[in-house]
Amino acid sequence: MTKKKTTALHEVDGVSQPETTNKMAADKIKATRNRQYSVDEYVSQILAGSIPFLSRAITLVESTKASHQEKANAILERCLAYANKSVRIGITGVPGVGKSTFIESYGSYLTAQNKKVAVLAIDPSSSVNKGSILGDKTRMEALVTDPNAFIRPSPSGTSLGGVAQKTRETIILCEAAGFDTVIIETVGVGQSETAVHSMVDFFLLLKISGAGDELQGIKRGIIEMADAIVINKADGDNVQNAKIAKTAFNRALHLYPPKESKWIPKVLTCSALNHEGVDKIDAMINDYLSLTKTNGSFDKRRQEQNKYWLFATIEQQLKDNFYNNTLVSEALSKAIEDLEKGTTTPFNAAEKLLKINR
Amino acid sequence: MTKKKTTALHEVDGVSQPETTNKMAADKIKATRNRQYSVDEYVSQILAGSIPFLSRAITLVESTKASHQEKANAILERCLAYANKSVRIGITGVPGVGKSTFIESYGSYLTAQNKKVAVLAIDPSSSVNKGSILGDKTRMEALVTDPNAFIRPSPSGTSLGGVAQKTRETIILCEAAGFDTVIIETVGVGQSETAVHSMVDFFLLLKISGAGDELQGIKRGIIEMADAIVINKADGDNVQNAKIAKTAFNRALHLYPPKESKWIPKVLTCSALNHEGVDKIDAMINDYLSLTKTNGSFDKRRQEQNKYWLFATIEQQLKDNFYNNTLVSEALSKAIEDLEKGTTTPFNAAEKLLKINR
Repeated sequence: MTKKKTTALHEVDGVSQPETTNKMAADKIKATRNRQYSVDEYVSQILAGSIPFLSRAITLVESTKASHQEKANAILERCLAYANKSVRIGITGVPGVGKSTFIESYGSYLTAQNKKVAVLAIDPSSSVNKGSILGDKTRMEALVTDPNAFIRPSPSGTSLGGVAQKTRETIILCEAAGFDTVIIETVGVGQSETAVHSMVDFFLLLKISGAGDELQGIKRGIIEMADAIVINKADGDNVQNAKIAKTAFNRALHLYPPKESKWIPKVLTCSALNHEGVDKIDAMINDYLSLTKTNGSFDKRRQEQNKYWLFATIEQQLKDNFYNNTLVSEALSKAIEDLEKGTTTPFNAAEKLLKINR
Repeated sequence: MTKKKTTALHEVDGVSQPETTNKMAADKIKATRNRQYSVDEYVSQILAGSIPFLSRAITLVESTKASHQEKANAILERCLAYANKSVRIGITGVPGVGKSTFIESYGSYLTAQNKKVAVLAIDPSSSVNKGSILGDKTRMEALVTDPNAFIRPSPSGTSLGGVAQKTRETIILCEAAGFDTVIIETVGVGQSETAVHSMVDFFLLLKISGAGDELQGIKRGIIEMADAIVINKADGDNVQNAKIAKTAFNRALHLYPPKESKWIPKVLTCSALNHEGVDKIDAMINDYLSLTKTNGSFDKRRQEQNKYWLFATIEQQLKDNFYNNTLVSEALSKAIEDLEKGTTTPFNAAEKLLKINR
């Protein structure tokens, strides 16, 4: 049975449609729309700082179509040589600490010094994305209209690994397009801050002061990853609390072994809303850069990140291939049942599952 | 050219050897040595508490020979039903904190109460193994000769995953043989404490007091894993320092989110050498057991550990299969070179490597 047509707006088969549009004009529009640019065109336009081409290339990176990915890979390999002049800053913090206000304030501070700033996000709940989804123009109002700033929401995707890969590739494109500061935002409530930490040169944890319970319920490992903790909203009645929080965080940082880079993580306060303290944060990041570029740990960290992503990508793919095998997933449910009943050991069960995929 | 014989003690070809041994006696010894016991024999002997059969079954578990592993798996599946009456205690601490003295003291305390205690180690640098390698009879002197104790060094093996699997299977055999307390020792300096944490019901971190710098250089995550921190060597001049350390550790424990089991990790002091405080540690472990067995988290933790080992085994095997492919390992070296030269992205390189294995 064919589906009943529920609209009056349909053609009758065999009756040709009247030419209501100017055919030549329509063809011209179509030709432009469908125009496929070559890898050479992409690369030269991106290197010339073209934002439309940068955006288009990011769309290729984000595409799941094989031909798009192939083109994206070719563009990326050509852009790689230009990627090393930038600094990549990761910013994390739970919702409510003022990440978008901070990025707005710090980003504007940088563009005022003729820096070019790209802002990316790694998860759909970040402020960058919320702004774009809600059309909330008050978020990063100044940066959105700043010609030296480029804001791109995180790619949609179900797996963090996939989103992280696309974000990391987008960083390379932004750098080739002349953005010397790339800020990657993440919400510090999931696994994504580990991913961000593995793609940035400097990792900043944003906090606000509370009633002395700053360290309660803090997420495992997040303080250890931080190159700096910045206590935001240090204004008005909060100034005193921020100072107390600063002491508490300084004490917490001392619980961790020294970093390989010899950098001693700092705790600073700021009021992003009043643009106070942002200059000191910038000075600290510059101190970090001159230390780590002098002692070689800047390059070393990037090299290690490359290897991290090589192995992480391989291992994620191996797992995906295995668990997406229908026979495996059926047998896996059975194996977990048997484990729960106590009739098999995890090692026996694993061996049987691995035989299926061979 | 044949190798020049450098010994005078060789036979001349074609000359038969004199019968210097009693052939019948030799055959009898060989027959006994080669006697293969059936799975049924193993299981019934282990369940009857036979230490020779327990040891022999552990040797099967540790063997890399396929026929041995098959037999071991059959024995293990039959022993599983008896595994749930025991408590598994993990003990970690850096060299010098007195792990062997502590296990000797606590183990003897338990056997004095008619408990049966098995002591296993997960890494070759633990005190259990050092004792056996060096033949150092002063280590765990009392336990070694205690009929209610069973001490087994960790299996040799290059990968932690492999050693952990064998240790976990050995636990099952010990439990089936009637050991109601299984102590697994590890040196808290590597990755092995995560493996131990994933196979025990209670995880105890052993420390000594220092000059107030107890928390300096502490290993990531290890405090978070601990169900208790015990400060050993709290005797003589150390009593006061141990009290200070106790306060510092109590403060550090408060930095972590509460455990799902509702158990609040404790800090205790003891002097294993003088057998002081060991009774309080045992009382604490009993408190833990009655809490977690009542609220269901004891069983839940074991179930989760089974799933952890199922997935960990699968994923380790997938990686081993991939990286042990000769073509892959050659291409991997090249890919890392290209990454270092900046001529490829980690994602491109990963994709190329994955194609090799397909």
